[in-house]
Amino acid sequence: MNKRLDLSLYLVLDPILCGGINGMVETTKIAVANGVTAVQLRSEHEFSGKNWYYAALALKEALSDTHVPLFINDHVDIALAIDADGVHIGQSDLPVDVTRKLIGNNKWLGFSVANRQQLDEVSWQLVDYIGIGPIYPTTTKQDAAPAMGMPQLTQLVKLKQCPAVAIGGININNATAILQSGIEGIAVVSAICGQKNIQQATLSLLEKVQQAKNK
Amino acid sequence: MNKRLDLSLYLVLDPILCGGINGMVETTKIAVANGVTAVQLRSEHEFSGKNWYYAALALKEALSDTHVPLFINDHVDIALAIDADGVHIGQSDLPVDVTRKLIGNNKWLGFSVANRQQLDEVSWQLVDYIGIGPIYPTTTKQDAAPAMGMPQLTQLVKLKQCPAVAIGGININNATAILQSGIEGIAVVSAICGQKNIQQATLSLLEKVQQAKNK
Repeated sequence: MNKRLDLSLYLVLDPILCGGINGMVETTKIAVANGVTAVQLRSEHEFSGKNWYYAALALKEALSDTHVPLFINDHVDIALAIDADGVHIGQSDLPVDVTRKLIGNNKWLGFSVANRQQLDEVSWQLVDYIGIGPIYPTTTKQDAAPAMGMPQLTQLVKLKQCPAVAIGGININNATAILQSGIEGIAVVSAICGQKNIQQATLSLLEKVQQAKNK
Repeated sequence: MNKRLDLSLYLVLDPILCGGINGMVETTKIAVANGVTAVQLRSEHEFSGKNWYYAALALKEALSDTHVPLFINDHVDIALAIDADGVHIGQSDLPVDVTRKLIGNNKWLGFSVANRQQLDEVSWQLVDYIGIGPIYPTTTKQDAAPAMGMPQLTQLVKLKQCPAVAIGGININNATAILQSGIEGIAVVSAICGQKNIQQATLSLLEKVQQAKNK
């Protein structure tokens, strides 16, 4: 099915937090059925190439009948191996130009930006979206940059030259304020992964997104 | 320059053990000038995608005027990004068939085998060589399988269907015995990386290799 690049409610999957690969696939199915618009596989833990491959394959299968694209974090080889819809890289990964060359023009490329300097250095013609964060302190990414807070988010949103999604400590309580910055979407990890009621967690976030978009 | 697949004296580079990327490049130049026939970049430590990329690029440049091929451990995307001569993968990496599809037929593919069962499962038509090990206990690979010792090495060498290189705890004292198994070459890490005299360490190992081949 054709995929759509809609950053509104972007789920970043942590396989461990989801209770393993099966739990992650189950989380994905429920979350996507209830409004998640993009999915990324990311693992901050020790996760072998084989695990990455089979986890990514399982997610691709789970999303095959949806318009929701699958992004692979950092591991360009895994994205190529399963023909993912996109790749998301950070400042310490393969350079953007090298990554674009590897994935070609038929996959989306997302790139993480943590401050003004990094934003000023973005090769806008090579990326499809940027992730801005962490907005608030996060417990799911060990090597995260310092939290930037709302004022800097608002500044970066004004300066960006492509769609963007905010990430880092985003939950039901701060989602509205973040979306009022004018950013296209919010990315969450623990606000969905590991929640007791995935459906309710997703629906609550979706409601915030829809309220913000209708304003 | 045309590369040759000669496993005789195969240097597996550990950037940390070499004192960083510059030290690793220096080690490589000296080792190759003194008889190393193949080089692999491997990092068992935390090493970002960016570090992998620039380390691999530097090694490729260092080997550009030689017949010595550069292999990249595990990270198929890095191998593609710098157009390395080959990839070496293990049992917990991307599957062999997936890796071969990603790298095509113009790069060599090495695959690690630690016991008889793994040897029996090798897709011989897809790999160019196998690494057999660890032969002896190793300090440079944390997730290494149990050391197999000489009797099992000898058995696996008899059963293999492609060239092979032995790895794991190999040094100047046990190199001759290992080569007497009939295996095509020896792979070393700490017998060269981090040695005070890289030239002497390499020449001593080369002498063992040449003695074994001339018998």
